[in-house]
Amino acid sequence: MRKPIVTLTTDFGLRDPYVAEMKAVILSINSDATIVDVSHDVEKFNVRMGAYILACAAPYFPKGTIHVAVVDPSVGTERRAIVIETKRFFFVGPNNGVLALAAEKQEIKNVYQITNQKLMLSKVSATFHGRDIFAPAAAHLAKGTAPEEFGSRISRIVTPSFAKNVKKGNVVAGEVLYVDDFGNVVTSFSGRELELVGAKEAVCIRFKGNELKLDIRKAYADAENQKPFALIGSHGFLEIAMNQASAAERLKAAIGDSILLHLV
Amino acid sequence: MRKPIVTLTTDFGLRDPYVAEMKAVILSINSDATIVDVSHDVEKFNVRMGAYILACAAPYFPKGTIHVAVVDPSVGTERRAIVIETKRFFFVGPNNGVLALAAEKQEIKNVYQITNQKLMLSKVSATFHGRDIFAPAAAHLAKGTAPEEFGSRISRIVTPSFAKNVKKGNVVAGEVLYVDDFGNVVTSFSGRELELVGAKEAVCIRFKGNELKLDIRKAYADAENQKPFALIGSHGFLEIAMNQASAAERLKAAIGDSILLHLV
Amino acid sequence: MRKPIVTLTTDFGLRDPYVAEMKAVILSINSDATIVDVSHDVEKFNVRMGAYILACAAPYFPKGTIHVAVVDPSVGTERRAIVIETKRFFFVGPNNGVLALAAEKQEIKNVYQITNQKLMLSKVSATFHGRDIFAPAAAHLAKGTAPEEFGSRISRIVTPSFAKNVKKGNVVAGEVLYVDDFGNVVTSFSGRELELVGAKEAVCIRFKGNELKLDIRKAYADAENQKPFALIGSHGFLEIAMNQASAAERLKAAIGDSILLHLV
Repeated sequence: MRKPIVTLTTDFGLRDPYVAEMKAVILSINSDATIVDVSHDVEKFNVRMGAYILACAAPYFPKGTIHVAVVDPSVGTERRAIVIETKRFFFVGPNNGVLALAAEKQEIKNVYQITNQKLMLSKVSATFHGRDIFAPAAAHLAKGTAPEEFGSRISRIVTPSFAKNVKKGNVVAGEVLYVDDFGNVVTSFSGRELELVGAKEAVCIRFKGNELKLDIRKAYADAENQKPFALIGSHGFLEIAMNQASAAERLKAAIGDSILLHLV
Repeated sequence: MRKPIVTLTTDFGLRDPYVAEMKAVILSINSDATIVDVSHDVEKFNVRMGAYILACAAPYFPKGTIHVAVVDPSVGTERRAIVIETKRFFFVGPNNGVLALAAEKQEIKNVYQITNQKLMLSKVSATFHGRDIFAPAAAHLAKGTAPEEFGSRISRIVTPSFAKNVKKGNVVAGEVLYVDDFGNVVTSFSGRELELVGAKEAVCIRFKGNELKLDIRKAYADAENQKPFALIGSHGFLEIAMNQASAAERLKAAIGDSILLHLV
Repeated sequence: MRKPIVTLTTDFGLRDPYVAEMKAVILSINSDATIVDVSHDVEKFNVRMGAYILACAAPYFPKGTIHVAVVDPSVGTERRAIVIETKRFFFVGPNNGVLALAAEKQEIKNVYQITNQKLMLSKVSATFHGRDIFAPAAAHLAKGTAPEEFGSRISRIVTPSFAKNVKKGNVVAGEVLYVDDFGNVVTSFSGRELELVGAKEAVCIRFKGNELKLDIRKAYADAENQKPFALIGSHGFLEIAMNQASAAERLKAAIGDSILLHLV
């Protein structure tokens, strides 16, 4: 049988012992698991950022992968712990939206609340469910425990508040989804919105009160230096980028900023 | 047989090639080893911080795990390289205290000095024992080499200078053990000291000349915003925390700061 | 059969989903692969730094390891994607020099251009060849695909522009190869150049207009505090270092700075 893969997405950072404790718990329950870090540098408590990063990475993993995400400002309160079963994956974490974006790209089959204490660590703290509930759940799923063993089915999951792109007349309103470590500004627009506004070789945007006309390039190095340009990035979103420089810094762009796409 | 786990705790950081070189050496000797990073972001030369992080994470690993820690300002001098055999684990590293806190939580059976050059890399540098001595030792232990093969038994290990909590009259004196990446201030106090001073719903501390009365909460999100509070964290220590903010920044707390616990 | 090892060296950082996507692709094609991170914190677009880090770490890995490096400012343009076959390893990445330093330390047997689309992801983006071309290539090599399957043989690889050490009269001119996270300044000089200038117990250098006479020490802790000294580091290069402090900060040294070695 294929070795099960468990992925981890958290806002824990890599200095503290917390990520290692989750891995220790997973390997204690299931020494066959291959653990892959997606990211531990999600901005603290930024559920949306965790959701975006997980949604980018998750689809590339093989069928059967168990994705754990812990960006969990309400740990220990009444927010639920859940397992989402999709056609290809399991998702494990708090029901606060961090799993939703990735799970909804798949075909969601069932969602279960995690309440079965036999599938948790024997002592469950109020402050570290990543180690005490989510890591054991992932390890048990990786061993073949059926998802209905974890608890009762629930009908709705919390979804993060990403703005939908909205077309009004000649304008499409969207937002900045993410700013990557290269300073590329990932927007909520894709090829579809470019078609809506008839953008082919250039795109007109309104951002922070400025009108920008950006050439559309295929590769970063196709662009002149020092000048922001647009391209469809490797996840299908329109990015504002610069050749070997940070477009985010130039435009002072941050996650959640609104952005308008105009008719060319 | 269960695949052996080797954990790594260092102050090397993740940019340089050093951690990868240790992993390369381990896998060259023992391709079956599962290597888990505990932390590589221990503050440079901070033996105490390395000891604390390893002591938090180690107990969660399965029996037979080999824990390597390299925070080693005296590498290449007369400080010894050791293997500590405990009931559940092996610990490998310099005899400077970095292993002691974690090992002493276990039942220590024997301590061996590493002197057998057959179990080291063929060329041993004076500056990188992590790669040349400790990684090979861990890989050989993971292959089943008996700990007494490494060298002669020694009777004492160096322990890091953590202050003991001391009760004087109505006051217990302790210190800040750790400040985590969320800004939680982990103190040397546990439930035991809270009992000593009769703290139930609130705790009175003296820190940097200020008297603070902190409510005791169960979960981070139980607390009001903008206000430090106390809770027993996931490793059993009293923490000073804030809801989605850094208590360490607010209180200007740093590792090693002394802290007093008062009668309520 | 020994489990194949794939190493990754990139300038992607660890916050974004990119590294995880490469790992997901590798494990989707070859679930047996053991993936080891060499570094993801290469300075953005710094091909030389990536080349240096990979060249340090690569030799310690077992025969058969596949080393992938992606520091790739010209991704999506006409720069080639290559597989370098050496006696012990495969190297996979862009033909821009990032692989060359490590590969040339080995015995290079053949170099192949990667053009066979059957060995890439089904959709290849213009911006992320790490995920779409290099990760699949590494996974297929790890499964035993012959390197000539990837494309036609090419005769030359691009090499990064490291200065050669040059002797002129009593002086050898070299440069700063790397500055590590401890602040150790790694120079291009080795024991050979020390012999050329007759340096035994001390070395005379000219750096940024200053003459420095540095004692040669064996270990970091052998040196007095607060005073830079020289030592032959664990990769055989002359380093300027300080005991528990940053020589790079003291000397304001940066990668690529030129440095002269004088007769003592």
